[in-house]
Amino acid sequence: MDNFTFYSPTYFVFGKEEENNAGKYVQRFGGKKVLIHYGGGSAVRSGLLDRVKKSLTQAGLEYVELGGVKPNPRSGLVYEGIGLCRKEKVDFILAVGGGSTIDSAKAIAIGVPYEGDFWDFYQGKAAAEALPIGTVLTIAAAGSEGGNGSVITHEEGNYKRATGSEVLYPKFSILNPALTQTLPAYQTACGITDIMAHLLERYFTNTKEVEVTDRLLEALLLTMIKEGPKAIENPNDYGARANIMWAGMMAHNDSCGVGRSQDWASHEIEHELSGAYDCAHGAGLAVVMPAVMKYNMYRDVNRFARLAVNVWGCQMNFDHPEETAKEGIEAFQHFLAKIHMPSNLEDLGAREEDIEMLAHNCSYGAGRTGILNGFAALTEQDIINIYHLMG
Amino acid sequence: MDNFTFYSPTYFVFGKEEENNAGKYVQRFGGKKVLIHYGGGSAVRSGLLDRVKKSLTQAGLEYVELGGVKPNPRSGLVYEGIGLCRKEKVDFILAVGGGSTIDSAKAIAIGVPYEGDFWDFYQGKAAAEALPIGTVLTIAAAGSEGGNGSVITHEEGNYKRATGSEVLYPKFSILNPALTQTLPAYQTACGITDIMAHLLERYFTNTKEVEVTDRLLEALLLTMIKEGPKAIENPNDYGARANIMWAGMMAHNDSCGVGRSQDWASHEIEHELSGAYDCAHGAGLAVVMPAVMKYNMYRDVNRFARLAVNVWGCQMNFDHPEETAKEGIEAFQHFLAKIHMPSNLEDLGAREEDIEMLAHNCSYGAGRTGILNGFAALTEQDIINIYHLMG
Repeated sequence: MDNFTFYSPTYFVFGKEEENNAGKYVQRFGGKKVLIHYGGGSAVRSGLLDRVKKSLTQAGLEYVELGGVKPNPRSGLVYEGIGLCRKEKVDFILAVGGGSTIDSAKAIAIGVPYEGDFWDFYQGKAAAEALPIGTVLTIAAAGSEGGNGSVITHEEGNYKRATGSEVLYPKFSILNPALTQTLPAYQTACGITDIMAHLLERYFTNTKEVEVTDRLLEALLLTMIKEGPKAIENPNDYGARANIMWAGMMAHNDSCGVGRSQDWASHEIEHELSGAYDCAHGAGLAVVMPAVMKYNMYRDVNRFARLAVNVWGCQMNFDHPEETAKEGIEAFQHFLAKIHMPSNLEDLGAREEDIEMLAHNCSYGAGRTGILNGFAALTEQDIINIYHLMG
Repeated sequence: MDNFTFYSPTYFVFGKEEENNAGKYVQRFGGKKVLIHYGGGSAVRSGLLDRVKKSLTQAGLEYVELGGVKPNPRSGLVYEGIGLCRKEKVDFILAVGGGSTIDSAKAIAIGVPYEGDFWDFYQGKAAAEALPIGTVLTIAAAGSEGGNGSVITHEEGNYKRATGSEVLYPKFSILNPALTQTLPAYQTACGITDIMAHLLERYFTNTKEVEVTDRLLEALLLTMIKEGPKAIENPNDYGARANIMWAGMMAHNDSCGVGRSQDWASHEIEHELSGAYDCAHGAGLAVVMPAVMKYNMYRDVNRFARLAVNVWGCQMNFDHPEETAKEGIEAFQHFLAKIHMPSNLEDLGAREEDIEMLAHNCSYGAGRTGILNGFAALTEQDIINIYHLMG
């Protein structure tokens, strides 16, 4: 096992109606003047935003609002949020929404105390300071509620890039599974796929003998396989929503991924798709992941066979482990089809003639130097080949 | 799933030689004058204490020392530590040792700023303040390095009681698996048993449909079953030690036990044994747990059958699930024998004629009212019956 540090200082508040305590938790973590950051109209229509505001008011807190976060959050709104926070002397940011809203809130949080362009942090600069953040999560997917990362798309060039810093862990995150019951099936499925990708990207490791994290990742994948389809079939299944929501946090706070090399190739290859075509990140991953797995499986057939046996319930073919490995990938594709995820580039609105451009951006965009490191070291040609496997 | 809050703010530093960074982390969390709290001579003989002191000195920190913590840590040393900290104006406590040392450090930490008797906190009073604590862990077992609990035995009457408070989470915990390589096999096995008990006590729940935590607990049990015997056979197996050490932390920081009722009957029943006969807590659990499981299994045969199938690899007997459940308990006993744990009261130095006294203390000692609640509601007579099952 590799040496590592692990830190997850967020205070998690999980369960029914807990959004009504948002004000109490902002207060606990020192906020006085809050920016409520949110996305589209659903938080307004459902009454969630009103409940959150009421809770802030009851706690004697002032607030301003900034809505309009879109999936694949854009730099423009971040600049606007930074300006608003400075003008209004905001000292706490409360994100009410999913991963995009939380990531946008994190970008604003590091931007406010920084004199330069916040985008610097998405190009490698380390952040040392940020406004404190809290979250009220409305979709189980990105894991941003328990993580220190943020992904933003820059409007000039549609680059989608990530940053991470200890100062970006939310102070608290409120996870009420009932809030996800109103999500359309497609968004629920995108979330399920994203969570599974977070697990698989950690599972594909070159570090040997990491049984504890292998088993934990398998446990969370098994949970998603059981609970995911239940939530699609019956959107009001609170139990399924709750299992998925905690699995989504655990999948990405890294407690199950420590001490091992990880593979983030699928995320990087997908980011080019959602950056360029504005498809949902989870939908993109549903197309990208099986292709990456097929391309990479011969690097470590037994790891893919283990996944097939321990997670997908395949029988081990001891004479031909590669057959078991393939069976596992097929079982994953079958699962994705069952929750109505797309299976090819066309479904995402992507064009085959763009593949070389996408691969080039992925290999060289925003200061990259040509090799995508992870489970395998992928060259631009490898990435072209992988995009072609997406059919 | 039940509503819950989850908080685990400790900064974990995991890996080889990390004890040499102790000073850096004390400094990061604001310490200037440190109490180094430790147990017997092994930390001295191995040179660990010297390395820690050197690291503090290099960071410009002053320190005083208090050794002598024994397994099942006693109140006497806690009083001594509180006095020493006040006299020396200590502002940070660094525990170098296992669960006993860390628990003793936590007791000192809440005792120093409190005007009354620290034992009040072990009789139900809530702690609101404590000196900050750091740990350098030398045995994977108790999980105290990532938890907010502490168990102390009061010398007057040999009562073993627990407390818990948010202020007792260590600020940092240094986990170097190599430090556990010098442990005698017996202590390693006691640690393995304690970790498995922490998982099983969470597994025996009355909450329905908690797949995510069921699966996580199973994952950690599977890890212990694979890695435990490897560490016993080859004490220098760093990989096995590392897997066990992270599993031990995850087993007890409660990330895998949230949102469900838990069963702490085995721990409570064992505390009477180690309180009265000073046997190792893990050894006591090896005797107690199978007896509790046999006594309780008819309350929910399918839960015990699931454990047998998913964790112990038993084939499900669909006609007679109770046979599968029993097979699982037998597999656990077989495992405990394989790592040379005791199997009956006599092995622990306990006397059958004491059973009624032990059960009475467990049911009514220190202000209890006669029912031990958990997976089952156990009366004094139930506890007598369970002690008799220990042979």
